[in-house]
This record gives sequence, structure tokens and C-alpha cells, in this order.
Amino acid sequence: MPAPAEFIKFIDSNADAFIQRLSDAVAIPSISGDASHRQDVFKMAEWLNAHLKAVGVDTQLVDLGKHTMDGEELPLPPAILGRIGDDKDKKTVLIYGHFDVQPANKSDGWDTDPFALTILPDGKLVGRGSSDDKGPILGWLNVLQYHFQSNKPLPVNLRLCFEGMEESGSEGLDELVEKESKKGGYFDGVECVCISDNYWLNTRTPALTYGLRGLTYFKLTVSGPARDLHSGVFGRTVHEPMTDLIHLMGRLVDVQGKILIPGVEEMVDVAGDEERAIYESLDYTTADIEQSAGAPIALSANKVDVLMGRMRYPSLSLHGIEGAFSGVGAKTVIPAKVSGKFSIRLVPPQTPDAVDPMVISYIEKEFAKLKSKNKLTIENLHGGKPWVADVNHWNFEAAKKATKEIYHQNPDLTREGGSIPVTLTFAESLGVNVLLLPMGRGDDGAHSTNEKLDRANFIEGSKLLGTYLYEIAAIAK
Amino acid sequence: MPAPAEFIKFIDSNADAFIQRLSDAVAIPSISGDASHRQDVFKMAEWLNAHLKAVGVDTQLVDLGKHTMDGEELPLPPAILGRIGDDKDKKTVLIYGHFDVQPANKSDGWDTDPFALTILPDGKLVGRGSSDDKGPILGWLNVLQYHFQSNKPLPVNLRLCFEGMEESGSEGLDELVEKESKKGGYFDGVECVCISDNYWLNTRTPALTYGLRGLTYFKLTVSGPARDLHSGVFGRTVHEPMTDLIHLMGRLVDVQGKILIPGVEEMVDVAGDEERAIYESLDYTTADIEQSAGAPIALSANKVDVLMGRMRYPSLSLHGIEGAFSGVGAKTVIPAKVSGKFSIRLVPPQTPDAVDPMVISYIEKEFAKLKSKNKLTIENLHGGKPWVADVNHWNFEAAKKATKEIYHQNPDLTREGGSIPVTLTFAESLGVNVLLLPMGRGDDGAHSTNEKLDRANFIEGSKLLGTYLYEIAAIAK
Repeated sequence: MPAPAEFIKFIDSNADAFIQRLSDAVAIPSISGDASHRQDVFKMAEWLNAHLKAVGVDTQLVDLGKHTMDGEELPLPPAILGRIGDDKDKKTVLIYGHFDVQPANKSDGWDTDPFALTILPDGKLVGRGSSDDKGPILGWLNVLQYHFQSNKPLPVNLRLCFEGMEESGSEGLDELVEKESKKGGYFDGVECVCISDNYWLNTRTPALTYGLRGLTYFKLTVSGPARDLHSGVFGRTVHEPMTDLIHLMGRLVDVQGKILIPGVEEMVDVAGDEERAIYESLDYTTADIEQSAGAPIALSANKVDVLMGRMRYPSLSLHGIEGAFSGVGAKTVIPAKVSGKFSIRLVPPQTPDAVDPMVISYIEKEFAKLKSKNKLTIENLHGGKPWVADVNHWNFEAAKKATKEIYHQNPDLTREGGSIPVTLTFAESLGVNVLLLPMGRGDDGAHSTNEKLDRANFIEGSKLLGTYLYEIAAIAK
Repeated sequence: MPAPAEFIKFIDSNADAFIQRLSDAVAIPSISGDASHRQDVFKMAEWLNAHLKAVGVDTQLVDLGKHTMDGEELPLPPAILGRIGDDKDKKTVLIYGHFDVQPANKSDGWDTDPFALTILPDGKLVGRGSSDDKGPILGWLNVLQYHFQSNKPLPVNLRLCFEGMEESGSEGLDELVEKESKKGGYFDGVECVCISDNYWLNTRTPALTYGLRGLTYFKLTVSGPARDLHSGVFGRTVHEPMTDLIHLMGRLVDVQGKILIPGVEEMVDVAGDEERAIYESLDYTTADIEQSAGAPIALSANKVDVLMGRMRYPSLSLHGIEGAFSGVGAKTVIPAKVSGKFSIRLVPPQTPDAVDPMVISYIEKEFAKLKSKNKLTIENLHGGKPWVADVNHWNFEAAKKATKEIYHQNPDLTREGGSIPVTLTFAESLGVNVLLLPMGRGDDGAHSTNEKLDRANFIEGSKLLGTYLYEIAAIAK
């Protein structure tokens, strides 16, 4: 049962208005990882809540309490719960999305103001959050607007769960999902989950995603002097925190991507020929990843190795250093306190609970070997388990049909390198199938400079989300 | 011949006005290493020039042309040349100082606004440039003001040379000094040089400095992706610039301060027992350096090793990384282009010309070993040769007498770990003795957060500078 032709027509004829609404959403710098922008995340929650009510969603804002970030106690942005329909003859689908974004400054290398959506001649909609994850959230809003304005009932019962802390570890959400998943809870009766918060493998082929890597994020702080020191006056007289930290960071991962922390790689089995064949079949080449990276820097010329490096093996990335000299020019300083940031992407059977102790004890051992008089502290900033789903479930079958209808091709079945920890929380708390239905392309540049969503993906993607709901109704009842 | 009692009295009775003038100077953020503050360096030059004229100095501003910093072409701040006296029966002394400062932000960890001089109850004058080098420059201004207001001739002929690029490699000054040192030049006839731009060894004992380490400052840039990447999407698929850079930076120096670049340590001979005895005699302990560092982090418990690490051996410090994530919180980014900053302090017979090729070829070799597909560029941002002077010259004898008169103790004779490249330019261009006559204490925290100058050092130091001129007149004619 495809979606009604009127729905498809409605999306096309309102495209410009939908893009304007996306522009309004991008204009709110709802950066959850920066305390100075916390109020913008609240503002974004209010904006979204108002728009959901306007299309007939029965919503409620849930206070998630407070948390401490970099020593400062902050109120958590509210989660938005929404409900439409209670028809016993319809399936009940839970939709998840997040309205917070990654940090972004023009000075990071953006060609345009990251918080002013820029429409390029080739149809790219450039702005922070355009693809991750405001575009997909607004895609659902587009679907709901059609049914509200044309006074058509949805083919399924919907439950919505939108959060404002996804980019900072989804603080407070797990407890909420677990609580509301119980008998009598807000999510009671939910039969499947759909999350649109990832990307196609390439720029050509729609994808359905059945696996995610987990994450564990660390902050290593080495401190010594009471204040920054002059390298002329103190060079070669004291233990320098930067020297210690650089030595520690250099022992975490090799330049080929192999994780050097004993036990971490060993947890993951090596792929056999059959599994390698699955990756061989994906519409993806090393050239694709080099195109999205913008340079010929793939770790391997073998597409299967590159794909498995992203999907089914763990990775460790060094993100940066807080407290050292990071400006332009030449400053001859010995920084007093420096914090290295790195994270490990986890795959089954790895979990933060299993991996974190290995990381901490290894770093403590390596620091002890340095015989430094400086102090080391290791903080885990956040983490989440990896996840894999059954691709033969009716939830996935509906998404495959919908994809075929809108894009006239079969989707790639992918595992994603990124982390959406709440995916696992839904799967475990509700005990139902979870589908990741990406809207954006592999070159959208989420978390990066010049993040974009293609106009075609926003518009066709909105049609896809609506059609998916109709296919669920068709298959499942 | 001590300075006239009226001079000493004048300095004491005008102390508060002098401190107010220092506060006015600190309020101008003349950061030479930050293009956005270049106009403030010009403003500082005008401020100083006006104050010099007001005390009877015949000055001229010398345009030093333009230079390129971080890809931007900028006008260089002018050098200020000044002249008082042409008496054939008097010695002619050249005074050098600099009116630019290191970068400073409250967010770096300052307790107060770095550009608002704060007077603490214990007499500390806290502010960027208070000790390095606005305090000493204003010390000379205090001396000149006495002679101007009391209409007393100076005991020597003075030539002044103040620059605004010292913290950024003294761009353009070498050429000026070389030119003006020639027959008929502005500095023709100069018989000795006095530079007040360093610190006592400790917080108790005045010092005269006869040696300086040189410097060579490098920027290593590793670039790969066309833009920052999401570590979930790209982790373990591409060569990550941060991983490459951290591995390179980890191969430059070990945690005990030993430089790992082949040939660099080997250029310096090892100190014999006689030389060690000189360092043993200094009024200095490991506890002193740990007190000024603010923590028990000395590389050795042996005071001689710690002192020689600072004065007569080279050092390598890692200052920071430009282009990586340096903010608070957790950002899961793979930075596209990262630049590591480090510098090496040089001692005789090391020179940038001899050391730089060793550094560059070593880093290129180590990068090649990484087999990375990323690109490496190595830039030398600035450098200067080390310097050692004759401590038995009348220039030093005059300073020893003056120190005894003002502080009632003999000065430590020290070699300094820091770099003032122009010192060598003066020594080589003029072929005369150069004296470093420090005003501040070992814990002033130049280049660091909460930089300060003690009120006593500013006031007694002003007396010392004046008395030194009278002792030259007494000894030399």
C-alpha cells in the first residue's frame, strides 16, 4: 500500500516552505556540548514543541533534571514526548530524533555562517544540524503536516521521542526510555522503532542500517605547574605536562588505525569469507569514501577492509587537546594543565563496561612508565554499547518497500560507524525491532565543517518517511 | 660614584605615579603574535614615543616594513630610536627594551583581566607585560624623568632602541641594528649595551646575566581530508592527521627532557667538575625552581643538573596544536589539518643554521616511516643564536657596584634559559659588551598566566638602572 498520491504531491508543492522551516531550525545554535549554548537547546525544544502541537501532536516536555559538565552544574534540556492515535487495529511506531547539534564556528573553516542555512545552486542546504539531525526531524513534521491539513488519519499510531543531548551522550534519556517502556508507560504498546539519524554509504544509494558502533569517550588530563611556564626559563628543568600527554596519546593507536590498548582488538573476531562477501556486495568503493573525505587517504585500497574498518571493527580517534596553545602564531609556553580527548568506537561484543577498565589500566601503566612527577587524571565523558538488528523483520521489510517506491532501487543494508546510544536503549527497553532509516548522504559532513543536506534528500526523504508508515500498515495487518 | 641622593628620593616619592604609568602601559594589549592585535602594538609605540619625548628624549619612529604572519601580510610595528647627550667626555650606552607582549586571555587561567594591572596587597603588580618587558622600559622612563625634571645632565650619553616584535622573532630589527651600527649610523659611538628583559634566578638575589639560550621555533602541519570528519563515519577508514602528528611530536623529546633528534644533543659538550662548581655556587636550589613552577616537578633533585638544564643545555618544549578540537566538552571530530608547535632552546655552539636541517630531515624521515597518505609541511617560524659575554668587562663591573649599592648584596652571575635574539645582534653588530640587567624575580611568570612584577623590584629596579649609569661614568673615565 503506497502512500496516497496527494501526500507525495503535498510534499513537492510545499518544498520551499519546508526548507524555510529547516532554515528557522538551523538558526537556533542548540549546541549541547557547550555550556554557553545550553539555553539555545532549551529554545530549540520550545520551537520544536510548538511546531509539533501545530500539526496535532499531543506533546509533553519532560524535565530530565541537572548534570555536571566541565565542573559546571547545568539543567538538562527537556525531552519531547508526543502521541498521535490509539487505534487497536493499527501498529504503533515510535519515532526518535534529536534537536541538539555539534559545536560549529565559522573559524573552524566553514565557508558560510554555520547557523544560517545557505542554499547552494546545486541544491545543497548548508548549515549545522541540516543533516544531523534537524532535517530528519523536520521530515517527520512534513509528514504530519500533510495528515493534519488534509484531515487524514495516519496509517499507524505514532509515539514521538525527541531529545536535546544526543551529541553529548544522551544524558538523562536512558532512564526516561526505560521508565516509559514499562507497562502503563508512555511507550507501552510500541511495536517497532524508527530512527532517522544517520547517512547513506554513498551519494547514490538509499540505505537501511541494522548495526551501529558503540562509543566510549575519554579525557586524559596531565597537570604539573601551578601556572603556564616560560619555556626559556623552565625548559629542561621540570616535567612538562604536554610532553607526558603527547607520549600517552601516541601509545593509544598506530597510524594504520590499530588500537594499541591490550585486549581491545582481541575482543572482536576476524571476519570470514562469507561475511566479507556481504561487504563486497555493497554499492560502495574506496573511491566513494575518498570522495566524501575529500582526499585519497583511505587506509587500504581494498574496499572490504575499508568498509569493515568503518562498520565491524573498532576505531580510536584522537580529537584534540584542551589547555595547550591552540591559537595561530608562535607562543613559547609550557602549558600547566593539558587534557587529551579521544574516543573508541565499539563493536559487538565490546561494551564500555568491558573496554573502559582496559583503557584506564593501560594508560595508568604507561603513565607510570614515564616516571613523571606530574599528575594524571582519566575521565570517561560518555559512552554507549554497539547494536545489531534483524534485517528480516517486517519493520525493515516496510522500509525496503518504501525505499523501492520513492527511489526506485533496493537499499544498501549497512552497519554504521557512528554511535546513537539510545538505539540500544530502545531495543533493550522495548524488546522490539529498531530500524535506522537515513535521510542524508555519505558526504553530508555531519560533525564537520560545511555540514549539508541535499534538497532532494530532504524532500524525497520526507516522502520516504511517510511511505514507510503506509507500508507498515500494509504488511503488518 | 653612587647616584645622587635626590635621585633615590625622587624614585621613592613618585612610586605611585610610576605604578599608574605602568598600569596605563599594560592596558594596551600589544600582542605581536596575534594579527588581530597588531594595531595595539602600533598604539603602544605611539604611547611610549610620547612619554619619551615628554622627558626630553630626541626620538624617531622607524618603519620596518611588512611581514607575513599565518598567511596574512601585516605592517610591522615601528622601532623607536632615542638619543640624549653627545658629550665626548662621557661613555655612550645603548639601552634596549620591547613594548610588545605575549598573548593572554582571562580564559587561559588568569585570576584577573590580564590587561588591567592589579595591585595585590603583597605588592605584586599583576598584568601581561608588567615584567616582560613594560616594567623595565618604564624603569628607564623613571630615571629619565628625574634628570629631565631636576634639569640634571645624565652621567652618560644614552641611545635607546625599543621594538614591538620581540615576542615574535624581532622581525625587521636585525637589519635596523646592523645598519645603524655602521660608521655614521644612529648607534655609531656606542660603547656598551644594557638590556633589561630577563629575571633573577630566585626571589631573593639580584642577578647579572652573561649568557642566553638561542631558539628555533617550528610548526609541523599534517593535513589530509578536505574538511573535518565524523569519527564514527570515518574512524579506521582514513589516515587521521592527528594520529600522524601525535606520533611525530612524541618522537621529538623524551619525558626526561632529552632531545631525540639525532645530532642536536651531541653538539653540546658535557660540563666538567670546574664548570659544575660555578652552578653549585649560585644562590639557587631545586626548591626555588619548584617554588616558581608552583609544584614539586623538577626533573632532578640535583640543583646543578636543574640549573644546567636551564642555562647550558638545550631544551625542547611542545607548546600545543592548532586546528584540533581545543574547546571544553566532547567533540567526536577527526580534524582535517593540525599544526603542532614546538621550539628548541639552543646553547653554544648550536645555531638555527646548524640545528634546523637536523630537525627537518629527522621529522621528514620519521613521517616517511609512518607510511601515511596525509601531507606534512614543516615551517620554521623564527629563531635566534645563543650568546655568552665577558663578565669582567667594565659594563658588568658597573652593574655589580650598582647592585651592591641598591640591594646591599652581590648579584648572581647567571646564564638565562630564555632567548633575546637581538642581544646577539647588538654584540655582533656593535662589537661591544652587552649586559643583561634583570628587574624582575624568578617567579614573575613571564609568558604565563598571572604575570607579575613586584612593586619593590619596579621601584628598587628603577634606582638600580639609574645608579648603573653613574657607576659606568665613575669606572670608565
